[in-house]
Amino acid sequence: MAASNLNAQKGVTAITWETIVEAHERIRPLVHRTPVLTSTSLNEMAGASLFFKCENLQKTGSFKIRGASNAIFSLSAEEAKRGVVTHSSGNHAAAVARAAGWRGVPAWIVMPKNAPAVKCRAVESYGGKITYCEPKVSARAETAARIQAETGAVLIHPYDDDRIIAGQATAAKELLEEVAELDAVLAPVSGGGLLSGTCLGAKGVRGTVRVFGCEPERADDAYRSLKTGVLQPQETTDTIADGLRASLAPRTFAILRKYADGILLVSEEEIRATLRLVWQRMKIVIEPSSAVALAPLLREGGVAALGLPHDRMARVGVILSGGNVEMG
Amino acid sequence: MAASNLNAQKGVTAITWETIVEAHERIRPLVHRTPVLTSTSLNEMAGASLFFKCENLQKTGSFKIRGASNAIFSLSAEEAKRGVVTHSSGNHAAAVARAAGWRGVPAWIVMPKNAPAVKCRAVESYGGKITYCEPKVSARAETAARIQAETGAVLIHPYDDDRIIAGQATAAKELLEEVAELDAVLAPVSGGGLLSGTCLGAKGVRGTVRVFGCEPERADDAYRSLKTGVLQPQETTDTIADGLRASLAPRTFAILRKYADGILLVSEEEIRATLRLVWQRMKIVIEPSSAVALAPLLREGGVAALGLPHDRMARVGVILSGGNVEMG
Repeated sequence: MAASNLNAQKGVTAITWETIVEAHERIRPLVHRTPVLTSTSLNEMAGASLFFKCENLQKTGSFKIRGASNAIFSLSAEEAKRGVVTHSSGNHAAAVARAAGWRGVPAWIVMPKNAPAVKCRAVESYGGKITYCEPKVSARAETAARIQAETGAVLIHPYDDDRIIAGQATAAKELLEEVAELDAVLAPVSGGGLLSGTCLGAKGVRGTVRVFGCEPERADDAYRSLKTGVLQPQETTDTIADGLRASLAPRTFAILRKYADGILLVSEEEIRATLRLVWQRMKIVIEPSSAVALAPLLREGGVAALGLPHDRMARVGVILSGGNVEMG
Repeated sequence: MAASNLNAQKGVTAITWETIVEAHERIRPLVHRTPVLTSTSLNEMAGASLFFKCENLQKTGSFKIRGASNAIFSLSAEEAKRGVVTHSSGNHAAAVARAAGWRGVPAWIVMPKNAPAVKCRAVESYGGKITYCEPKVSARAETAARIQAETGAVLIHPYDDDRIIAGQATAAKELLEEVAELDAVLAPVSGGGLLSGTCLGAKGVRGTVRVFGCEPERADDAYRSLKTGVLQPQETTDTIADGLRASLAPRTFAILRKYADGILLVSEEEIRATLRLVWQRMKIVIEPSSAVALAPLLREGGVAALGLPHDRMARVGVILSGGNVEMG
């Protein structure tokens, strides 16, 4: 039943519902099935029933461990023993280091020099070997390619990889399987791995659910790309949401053009206010990227703007993507 | 089966297993069934498998809503319409205001002048009417008695009340019903409502589980009372754990003498370090009182000091009692 929701769409992606189910089986013994929390006060503010999938409470502090463990545990023994390499502003880095440690293989991690110290420490604590690079998208990929050439390690791209996307899809799959009759799901978008997975995971369970990406105004490449139909680069990344500074890849762009129902932009001020609100009201620590996925629901007319059915209170899922922040 | 664990102990308390089951049925539609979280890194630090019952994620931000809603929804229509009155340093106050609001009756709340502002705002947001008093145990009770005399409101004592204790017991009941084969449960102790309930709720499910209270060194009346066998007052309350400044009542003292397996004392430094650790590693916001229940497990030899069976890794539950802190 659910399978047909996705498998009717040929050509956009090789990821089928079965791919996601297999990913879920593969990573289930490794990762947390994170709780879905609700908050009466946030429901009142949004005028909707909100269901928060708490990937901030996930191992390594973000959803990234889902994709990383799916990718690394998909490798053949031959591939795995050469080790893995990746580039990431932080959460994917920690996840690859952690999953590689579980599999017992080396992990080389390329991180921008301005990555938050807490994320660098996490990578090191999991046994990852960090190489710092300039904080530019191009520098990351070049450095990773050099390490790959030198070591023979397998590249675990943070989002331009079907195994990663299928792994990230399991968060929405769990959410939709746990919470009945969701009308919409919101997730942050950066390179598009989580949002692509959320589209496939959510619509695989419930074909009618609408999926929206949420993006900082100051890193709005997904918004511009989907609006123009042409993949747009993100040159500057001056946002507090340090997890959302990457750009879509052709692979994720294709999935989002087909399945995403819209991209919602969020101001820096909204991100800060939402961050504080969630800490205060929900008693959970989220990072700015997570706040980006809730902020559009808290503004005047925010839920109405999603174009959901009006015959009852809307039921909206929010993927709180991570909780890795520097503590004061 | 479970009932016999408690009902064999006559005379200590009128609370039976059936009382707790009825309380659970009564409050189930009102409160969250809070998640039980685990953390690999905290397990490694403790050398045990820890299971955190997250009452910081409970409605009103603490376990107190369990007892308050059980008490207030136990009132006859005649009693309820006169309204309720209580005194509390914060979390019980918010819970009584919230539960009274649900029942549609007035709530008069006596709070010490030095109660955290966030807790006062919470009471007001739920519609509670605050009367401030001097920050002394005696002043609270006197002020509440005066209001009770003036209004005819029913006193909902924060812990010297079987309906409160039975409500608080439902947190441990849920934990023990969800997590198999727990060897021990730790909970903070102040007036003893939560710890009494934890003893009855946990041992009602599993008779062999050991239950420990955790208390700041600077508010150690429960420790001194159980050690000497004579109820000891707490005169000074100079601890960061603002929720743990009350003293045992004869009612809770009697239950703890029978059922508690020990009281563990915690320094202010340990409370601060644990607070920070939980925010960083578990990505949840806890208040100092919650940290008190974890701190004894993180010190050298902490788990060994519990005297648990040695034939396997110990399995220890921790009641994280609340998450109401001032945000910087």
